[in-house]
Amino acid sequence: MVFLSLEKMFDPKSIAVIGASDHQDSVGQALMKNLVGNGFSGSIYPINPNRKNVSGIHSYRSIAQVPEKIDLAIIATPSFTVPRIARQCVKAGVKSIIVISSGFSETGKKGAALEKELARAIEGTGVRLLGPNCLGYIRPDKKINASFAIRNALPGKLALISQSGALCSGILDWAQKEKVGFKYFISIGGMLDIGFGDLIDFLENDTDVESIVLYMESLKNAEKFLDAAKKFSKKKPIIVAKSGRFEESAKAAISHTGAMAGNDEVFDAAFRRAGIVRVEEIQDLLGCSEAFSKQPIPKGDKILVITNAGGPGVMTTDAIIKSGCRLASLSGETISRLNRALPKNWSHNNPVDILGDASPERYAKALEICLNEKNADCVIAILTPQAISKPAEVAKKLVEEAKESEKTILSSWIGEAFVEEGKEILQANNIPCFETPEEAVRVFSYMNQYRKNIGNAYEAHCELPPLHRHNKEKISLKLKEILRQGRTVLTEIESKEILKAYGIPVNETMLAKNPESAVFKANSIGFPVAMKIVSNEITHKTDAKGIALNLSSEKEVEMAFDVIIKNAEKFNPKAKITGVSIQKMIESSGLELIIGAKTDITFGKVLLFGLGGTATEIFGDKSLELIPLTKNAPCEIPKRTKIYSLLKGYRHKFKADLAELAGILEGFSHIMNDFKEEIEEADINPLLISNGKLFAVDARIILKKAK
Amino acid sequence: MVFLSLEKMFDPKSIAVIGASDHQDSVGQALMKNLVGNGFSGSIYPINPNRKNVSGIHSYRSIAQVPEKIDLAIIATPSFTVPRIARQCVKAGVKSIIVISSGFSETGKKGAALEKELARAIEGTGVRLLGPNCLGYIRPDKKINASFAIRNALPGKLALISQSGALCSGILDWAQKEKVGFKYFISIGGMLDIGFGDLIDFLENDTDVESIVLYMESLKNAEKFLDAAKKFSKKKPIIVAKSGRFEESAKAAISHTGAMAGNDEVFDAAFRRAGIVRVEEIQDLLGCSEAFSKQPIPKGDKILVITNAGGPGVMTTDAIIKSGCRLASLSGETISRLNRALPKNWSHNNPVDILGDASPERYAKALEICLNEKNADCVIAILTPQAISKPAEVAKKLVEEAKESEKTILSSWIGEAFVEEGKEILQANNIPCFETPEEAVRVFSYMNQYRKNIGNAYEAHCELPPLHRHNKEKISLKLKEILRQGRTVLTEIESKEILKAYGIPVNETMLAKNPESAVFKANSIGFPVAMKIVSNEITHKTDAKGIALNLSSEKEVEMAFDVIIKNAEKFNPKAKITGVSIQKMIESSGLELIIGAKTDITFGKVLLFGLGGTATEIFGDKSLELIPLTKNAPCEIPKRTKIYSLLKGYRHKFKADLAELAGILEGFSHIMNDFKEEIEEADINPLLISNGKLFAVDARIILKKAK
Repeated sequence: MVFLSLEKMFDPKSIAVIGASDHQDSVGQALMKNLVGNGFSGSIYPINPNRKNVSGIHSYRSIAQVPEKIDLAIIATPSFTVPRIARQCVKAGVKSIIVISSGFSETGKKGAALEKELARAIEGTGVRLLGPNCLGYIRPDKKINASFAIRNALPGKLALISQSGALCSGILDWAQKEKVGFKYFISIGGMLDIGFGDLIDFLENDTDVESIVLYMESLKNAEKFLDAAKKFSKKKPIIVAKSGRFEESAKAAISHTGAMAGNDEVFDAAFRRAGIVRVEEIQDLLGCSEAFSKQPIPKGDKILVITNAGGPGVMTTDAIIKSGCRLASLSGETISRLNRALPKNWSHNNPVDILGDASPERYAKALEICLNEKNADCVIAILTPQAISKPAEVAKKLVEEAKESEKTILSSWIGEAFVEEGKEILQANNIPCFETPEEAVRVFSYMNQYRKNIGNAYEAHCELPPLHRHNKEKISLKLKEILRQGRTVLTEIESKEILKAYGIPVNETMLAKNPESAVFKANSIGFPVAMKIVSNEITHKTDAKGIALNLSSEKEVEMAFDVIIKNAEKFNPKAKITGVSIQKMIESSGLELIIGAKTDITFGKVLLFGLGGTATEIFGDKSLELIPLTKNAPCEIPKRTKIYSLLKGYRHKFKADLAELAGILEGFSHIMNDFKEEIEEADINPLLISNGKLFAVDARIILKKAK
Repeated sequence: MVFLSLEKMFDPKSIAVIGASDHQDSVGQALMKNLVGNGFSGSIYPINPNRKNVSGIHSYRSIAQVPEKIDLAIIATPSFTVPRIARQCVKAGVKSIIVISSGFSETGKKGAALEKELARAIEGTGVRLLGPNCLGYIRPDKKINASFAIRNALPGKLALISQSGALCSGILDWAQKEKVGFKYFISIGGMLDIGFGDLIDFLENDTDVESIVLYMESLKNAEKFLDAAKKFSKKKPIIVAKSGRFEESAKAAISHTGAMAGNDEVFDAAFRRAGIVRVEEIQDLLGCSEAFSKQPIPKGDKILVITNAGGPGVMTTDAIIKSGCRLASLSGETISRLNRALPKNWSHNNPVDILGDASPERYAKALEICLNEKNADCVIAILTPQAISKPAEVAKKLVEEAKESEKTILSSWIGEAFVEEGKEILQANNIPCFETPEEAVRVFSYMNQYRKNIGNAYEAHCELPPLHRHNKEKISLKLKEILRQGRTVLTEIESKEILKAYGIPVNETMLAKNPESAVFKANSIGFPVAMKIVSNEITHKTDAKGIALNLSSEKEVEMAFDVIIKNAEKFNPKAKITGVSIQKMIESSGLELIIGAKTDITFGKVLLFGLGGTATEIFGDKSLELIPLTKNAPCEIPKRTKIYSLLKGYRHKFKADLAELAGILEGFSHIMNDFKEEIEEADINPLLISNGKLFAVDARIILKKAK
């Protein structure tokens, strides 16, 4: 397929609107209304076989009859006509298409078939397509409003891409009020051709774009998206709200966009990998849109709060600590300057409470001093309406003082009508003003997260032990053989062999088919030993009472063998029992770790590390990462878990060799990557710590079913 | 002290304003402006020695000269004059006083002295005092605005009590816009006399009041507060936002209100005990104020979402699942009715997506059907502005349909100017309309929490084993003796004796002073044993390497004794070593529990139960409860921890005798309560599970220093 750039889509000289209409409340009318008379410098051609003109412009029967080559065709006709019209467009030399119409894969089987037909229409032609089922896009600088949105967008430096058209309308309405401007405002729709990755790639070449905001429900080309996002976010922020976190909501998203989404936690890992900041709620998406487009990225996480009200100061402090950011400590100089400028009852600390009777002049003086505090990276200015407070005056002062500052400045004027004018002054002058100080803090913490993301990308890589990937070919043959036998689940011993080949320490493990062999092998391994049932039909060995631990004599081993076999036979009379594994008993610190990998439908192989054992699900202390790992990932993964503080050596007991752990994570991910076609999922459970060293004590590898 | 009711304060027939003024921007002027011409049916007397009249009303030189008995005097003069004026008020027979003036304990030592003087002025007189350092109060139904707030309050059924005056102004401004009305709007200030408890007590007798909203930073009379709140919240909801969650913010609160606050987590326990719903942010406080005053408490947690936009539907579902509430499942009848009423591409599920081209009529039809869904307790209606959506029309339809419904109905019209009129229609008609659907869900989840709180109060009590509180007198003497010796830390053996006396199972523990005695005692207890250092100077035995576990022979015991003594001597050469404790080694399941109790400065003795051992601080899995416990608390406490699912018998390994655990919690809390004067703090750490039975394996009791 030939991929032309998206230039013709977003900077067209000629636009055809197929389905243009003068019919009240029709999409075709809305499109024309938005396009015409907006100042667009190119030509607009309405296409409607039933009319001579639309919106006062001569109308053509079909795209073929338009006298000029069309850069962009917007199709807003019933879905069943769209594939045919798309073919006509291709034939007529149209460079790019927006399909506004809905009625494709989001509506079920029939729609999906129609969507496939539409895909075939443009396949191999180089024509790019936005949609279907989208609102179109707006590009204010070129005066293009190629959408049927109810509001226009103000010009600015933000690029927004939304998978929900309905949300776009709400955002535009909001942006108008908060004075947030856009370079591009794009409704991405069904992503038949153009996806998030394409758009981010395109936006990266536009130096005007200072940040990208995404509303996402699902993702189609994960690799492309990650590559594009990584490149962009190294220089400028990408913020995403991804909905469909839970099974129930993902279900709602499917019925609504027709797209399947993978496990939401994997999205978290992917966003992290790409340096993207993920926000939780629509309010935060709006807040970040405003703050990232109006204020500089902070240089650190230290916030100075200035307020005319004690209570809101306390609440802001709560929010700051909760967010993981810090209260800036006031320097001696700042304190003495504030002492001179403020009445003696000021708070003498951060939050700087300048008291309820503060005049705009007092507020301005305090602001000037606070904005010069070298310990602070951000100033949050709070105002509550009190008898004397004059919210608009203070807003003007803040705007003035802010001009000289390189700090991130956010504000919250608490109230409604009384503070309205002040809010408007702030918003019109690039100082985001939030309903509550808590929201200001939350938005700042996202800005701070982006700052840390950039930092992370340049962090030194940790040293890893050399790898042992020699037996790749041999393992490959072994896996083929297992599949040939009709098996997909490897035994513990088979699994451990593969781990060992990739440098992962396992406890010595042998198979015994009878009690005598068990005793013999126990002696060769050395007491105490553990014994476990080996059977393809029994994967949950504990449930089958198929495990015996801490056996320290020949007698015990002999007895255990019989008990395990009997228990297994009872548990599943149909199970074919291979034997019992005999392995070195690891004297563990008591902490069980788990390493696992699964296949996500969006992002492919994903690694999991965390607290294992019985408590795994209860505490959910885990860290996910896409496979293959980046160079520093093996060291970073454990740091994101709570148990890391134990592994580092908190109270010594659970201290682990962290370099060895990193090596294990790397080795494991290499297994998953080297055999990504063969292995569906795998885990080491538990991975135990014994005197600081790590041992894979049980392991399981499950293959994909052969096709 | 004689406590008159607060009737004269809140329903005065005559009001004097001391410090009344016509001076521009003065508090005295603001007070008069708010009081006069507001329709108050009693008399208002300005007091100002320098003026003949204020606000056109004859002014008196002092309170003594007013011809009528004054029910309420409002003082707004400089702080140093306030105690003197208060004394004059008492003398003149004034029944209640509001001190607006600041400059008391919130400003440091001098102010605190002034506050004491003010307290003495009213002490024993029966005169009640609101403030100092407050905004006053507003009571719209009686047309009393006894405050210097910048806005008046609308009449309604909500009572608001705020410890931050500045916040009050913001809330009033907001309430005006959102059409939220108040029966009482009270700025509580420094709580010299009237505290939260007094006010809640008073409000309980006003049947008009349908809910109470509190903004709290600290609490002075915890017992009174809890009693009053418990009584009120059994019938009607109390919602609280308490700030100062963290050390940093509590510090900010001190400098601002002059009051110390206890541990924030203990407030959580106290609020729970009193059936109070705690919200986290100011936005939620506002949202709850609106919803609780306009909508009924839901009958369950199942939400039905109706929306004209898929994306916001997905986000709402995310928020619902995250909140712990549930999506209502649509009944067959509802689905077939919706099938008939909606275009065939509707979502066929909850969220009910009626699609972007929905007309007000379609919205109304769907609403009618959804409001009749018997599986739903709440309907959240969402609208985004789309070409055809007519937000105001849909709002009118919703208002109409809602009239017939007993469900909780919330809404979110997403956007600004385009949806403004619709929002206003909803708000004026008692349907709360939020900026985002996530906020609607959050508010609903608080309503649902209140519903559950009521339910909890009537839950059946669990059966507890009989208690063993016989040795109370003996223990009391023993504690006195220990204090007499100049000790405050009990040894492990002493501590365990007390536990045992209260029915708490401990592992048998004896003291050995030499190796021979250790061996003898180990034999009498039975092998294997554990040994621990006993020394008043060594409380962290692990750090001193003063513990040896799993000793299974005389030889091992003998050696361990020497090693422990040597380690202890090395760890702290000055420590006086009493000996070594010998105790039965408990074969534990591997899960360590902890039970502890501390003394909170606000609420007194507080019990803690949770995950113990090394991981305690890392996972923070704990549950706090005030002492004495309520009857069902011993069973409820463990349920609030994550490890409860283990204790219940998840995968069997960690199953514990829950009735025994409840008994231990009860016994422990009885110890703390019976000796609350003597004991400062105590803990059982660890409490181990062995074959389902529980054992206090180590224990520590610390006494208050004798005065």
